[in-house]
Amino acid sequence: MVLQRTHQGGKLNKSLIGTEVILSGWVQKRRDLGGLIFIDLRDRSGIVQLVINPEKSQKAHQVADKLRSEYVIAVKGIVVAREEETVNPNMETGEIEVEVSEIELINEAKTPPFFIQDNIEIDESLRLKYRYLDLRRNEMKNTLILRHKVTTYIRNFLDKYGFLDIETPMLTKSTPEGARDYLVASRKHPGHFFALPQSPQLFKQLLMVSGFERYYQVTRCFRDEDLRADRQPEFTQVDIEMSFMPLKEFQDLMEEMMVGLFKETIGYEIERPFLRMTYQEAMERYGSDKPDIRFGMELKDISEIVKESEFKVFRNTIQNGGQVKGINAKGCASYSRKDVDQLTEFVSRYGAKGLAWLSLKEDGIKGSIVKFLSESEIEQIKTTMEAETGDLLLFVADSKEVVADALGNLRLELGKRLNLIPENVYKFLWITDFPLVSYDEEQQRYVAEHHPFTMPREEDIPLLDTDPSKVRAQAYDMVLNGYELGGGSLRIYQQEIQEKMFNVLGFTKEEAWDKFGFLLEAFEYGTPPHGGIAFGLDRLVMILANRNNLRDTIAFPKTTNANCLLTGAPTFVDDKQLKELHLEIKAKVKETEEIV
Amino acid sequence: MVLQRTHQGGKLNKSLIGTEVILSGWVQKRRDLGGLIFIDLRDRSGIVQLVINPEKSQKAHQVADKLRSEYVIAVKGIVVAREEETVNPNMETGEIEVEVSEIELINEAKTPPFFIQDNIEIDESLRLKYRYLDLRRNEMKNTLILRHKVTTYIRNFLDKYGFLDIETPMLTKSTPEGARDYLVASRKHPGHFFALPQSPQLFKQLLMVSGFERYYQVTRCFRDEDLRADRQPEFTQVDIEMSFMPLKEFQDLMEEMMVGLFKETIGYEIERPFLRMTYQEAMERYGSDKPDIRFGMELKDISEIVKESEFKVFRNTIQNGGQVKGINAKGCASYSRKDVDQLTEFVSRYGAKGLAWLSLKEDGIKGSIVKFLSESEIEQIKTTMEAETGDLLLFVADSKEVVADALGNLRLELGKRLNLIPENVYKFLWITDFPLVSYDEEQQRYVAEHHPFTMPREEDIPLLDTDPSKVRAQAYDMVLNGYELGGGSLRIYQQEIQEKMFNVLGFTKEEAWDKFGFLLEAFEYGTPPHGGIAFGLDRLVMILANRNNLRDTIAFPKTTNANCLLTGAPTFVDDKQLKELHLEIKAKVKETEEIV
Repeated sequence: MVLQRTHQGGKLNKSLIGTEVILSGWVQKRRDLGGLIFIDLRDRSGIVQLVINPEKSQKAHQVADKLRSEYVIAVKGIVVAREEETVNPNMETGEIEVEVSEIELINEAKTPPFFIQDNIEIDESLRLKYRYLDLRRNEMKNTLILRHKVTTYIRNFLDKYGFLDIETPMLTKSTPEGARDYLVASRKHPGHFFALPQSPQLFKQLLMVSGFERYYQVTRCFRDEDLRADRQPEFTQVDIEMSFMPLKEFQDLMEEMMVGLFKETIGYEIERPFLRMTYQEAMERYGSDKPDIRFGMELKDISEIVKESEFKVFRNTIQNGGQVKGINAKGCASYSRKDVDQLTEFVSRYGAKGLAWLSLKEDGIKGSIVKFLSESEIEQIKTTMEAETGDLLLFVADSKEVVADALGNLRLELGKRLNLIPENVYKFLWITDFPLVSYDEEQQRYVAEHHPFTMPREEDIPLLDTDPSKVRAQAYDMVLNGYELGGGSLRIYQQEIQEKMFNVLGFTKEEAWDKFGFLLEAFEYGTPPHGGIAFGLDRLVMILANRNNLRDTIAFPKTTNANCLLTGAPTFVDDKQLKELHLEIKAKVKETEEIV
Repeated sequence: MVLQRTHQGGKLNKSLIGTEVILSGWVQKRRDLGGLIFIDLRDRSGIVQLVINPEKSQKAHQVADKLRSEYVIAVKGIVVAREEETVNPNMETGEIEVEVSEIELINEAKTPPFFIQDNIEIDESLRLKYRYLDLRRNEMKNTLILRHKVTTYIRNFLDKYGFLDIETPMLTKSTPEGARDYLVASRKHPGHFFALPQSPQLFKQLLMVSGFERYYQVTRCFRDEDLRADRQPEFTQVDIEMSFMPLKEFQDLMEEMMVGLFKETIGYEIERPFLRMTYQEAMERYGSDKPDIRFGMELKDISEIVKESEFKVFRNTIQNGGQVKGINAKGCASYSRKDVDQLTEFVSRYGAKGLAWLSLKEDGIKGSIVKFLSESEIEQIKTTMEAETGDLLLFVADSKEVVADALGNLRLELGKRLNLIPENVYKFLWITDFPLVSYDEEQQRYVAEHHPFTMPREEDIPLLDTDPSKVRAQAYDMVLNGYELGGGSLRIYQQEIQEKMFNVLGFTKEEAWDKFGFLLEAFEYGTPPHGGIAFGLDRLVMILANRNNLRDTIAFPKTTNANCLLTGAPTFVDDKQLKELHLEIKAKVKETEEIV
């Protein structure tokens, strides 16, 4: 390389007219117009137009003539104003171009398998295989630049408030009571494995025991789970823990961080303070512990109204301890039978056995249940549902859980279909008072909803002995537009409460020590009151970048099947490597098997 | 917890006299003096003295009476000036104390297994087992705070210069041509493994292919190697890569970063520009590619002088292609035969078969070789070695490699013994022009010294065909006080040079593609000139914190045997987990086996 860059091409502007510049980058596009060659030169900063006039430099023109898309070049030239009719207002550098006197061809390029431009419609697997080319596209590049800004902002914010970035181990101990661990074989310890951390939970609590008082880390976490579309086997967590700080003060600080972050990165002003809602209220009103409150269409309980209705399904459900709730799809009275059938199919995915409906048409009320309801019942329902002519009322009768899940999701679905959800609006809220434990039918015991170190609400502690499922935890989620952005809790720091908690989970003291011994031992040496939160960085960036897919926020992501299409990982390894690890494969796998 | 902290105890000072404060933290020490109880209260910020006077608050005194070391408390009180005779000038808060009106006992503590204070002399394994207590000690706490400052500084510096923090995968592909990979079993892909990265090398080069131009990451790397005292199975790397930037400019930037870092964190002014020395010169003058240039005692070649000497060992060594070099231990003529024997034993560890010596005593020259040397030879040696009466000259005759290793280490050893190495002086230099490849006798082929993508010096490219071992790489290390702080190189971006390189390493095109296919394919789509460097963060912090041990810079390190004494990792895992992973253990290991 002879020509050394003096400027970034995408940052050239009118103020530089007349200046000689040296640029380097990739050929985005080349056009030959009446002897003049025009090249769109791309570097990280953007795109600038080069003009190569054979009358000014024959040599440069000869080089330019050979250039193809994605060739790497350096050029020397003068910044000149474009003629008025060729000014491009859609381009940052659209008022100028560079009149080239010298071109250095640095590297050639094969024709890429897809166009290096935004909004391409190609199979994602091709994008993943050629990720290095996909990342050249503006929207992908900008997402990663945004991600850099997000972590940089968060780190500096936390640093300002005295949180210390402390690294915790990646090679650690397999922990019970969580998702599946990724296991790392150990050459020096036959039969022993490290586990990759699902979160730095235990270590961050140990750091509080150590007295660091305020800790943070932007760190990788791992889960060997069946992957859903929005999960990755490795993901990044902004992990924060503090001691001696009242919960409200800590939550305020987290709000302040989000306010600053959104302002700094996308110029959006978040409203403060964040709305607060208990878990119970969120479930009742939205059928979700991460409600999207950008629109209404709340769930209304009509159980009281229909508990003695002639409609057997309603009556029986309520008698059996279930409930009947509905949502009001405003203005949808014109939905056809077929439309409603489709919605019925939709709620069935969430376990609902049916979808009852009332359509408030101009010419009277129609619907699947109209014939079973008395006039008074219908009137009361209309009042409760705030219904008026033109509305479509949709009901699910089932257990509390199924009703919430089915109607909560139906609400979101209709919100989207009816365009009720404003874009570029960010509605934050805290969900608080999560249940501490829930009963696991399979294991026939209570399991921790958050983790076994979550502090119960003080006034609920007596319930640990009598009705654990009623105990509310000092646990909280930060929710944004229907996504859980982060979750945390205060931790138990008193031995007797911790023992009670293990008791509830059905562990003997011995079992508890077997599972969590080193943490429990640490707690004996002077544990401060502490708590924290962890944010999912990938999701936060996804929302800020307005992407639909976590993979778009990660430079080198894996497929939903935990494959890296770029490198081919995971791969077979040498027998020699396995031997050193004292391992043998038990499954029959053919060398040629393709697993994608 | 009722009392909510208003101040950090370690930050109280005279300006707050008369103020009511609420503090929280740990009891460092409790003393009962004539009815008054004095408590040293420790929080992250430091220590402050509390006074509890039973006449002012009987209740507080009663609580204070029960307190023991490491109990967690919160206190309310008034900042008061200490009486003149009790002012403690060795303590940040030594001019004041807090007169306590209220104490809240937050948590009790067992007696720690060692004192929470600096400079304790206890077995490191005990410190590692109770790491959370070890980290309470001032020197450990301060080292981690320093580490935070180091990463914060580096990140902000790199951000300022447009380097983007981009995360690369932890679950990736096992790579050949490096140290041993840690392998991660994959539940969904029987027989397949991910590897933990030894460095993000391939990904950072792909990011350059993508056009990010400037990248950095503070990231964990892994090596399943036999551990030396100063290695950890997981370690942190400051990884930096750039495109389109002249090497000198990049190195200048790295120098500027170090200058700023040392100034910001320890207030030290590094001299710039850094000294530059070729690998060859460093080996000749210091017998090391990471010379400690804080002191002299350079290696001098006397081969020319003694090549025809009567001393057969010298003569034969030189005839067989070896060399004879020496160092001058100034003022050590008084060393006894036994002292020299000890040094001989020392150099034997580095392969030297002997240590010849000349002692320039007041009453004449003594030494093992004096009788074999002519007067003229001795005079020439004295001149070359810049020797004068009182000096001890030490010589090794062997192959170039053994001479360098033995004398290089002897030089360091003597430098320490003779107190020649000034403390708190930081001498940086660049070592450049490393060999590109070296011949591996075991594999009977050339292997890359840095990695297979390292760019040779342009003028040496023809040597790739004729004498590869003579080719100098565009590779460089930043060296500080005898430590390699970081190493990097420019990378090959032209296909034909890359092919030549693989040729030298004995790979067919097919083999090369089999090993590095996805990177080689990426290089076909327009690769910019690029290069970078990686710094070892643990070591950098170790030097800045003036510690002797990498483990002291890591919150939760492993032993040299790759064990975590705190958690017990690695551990056995459930048979169920192994079954899901389709793995079976082949080694015989007893459940009870203790591996430490």
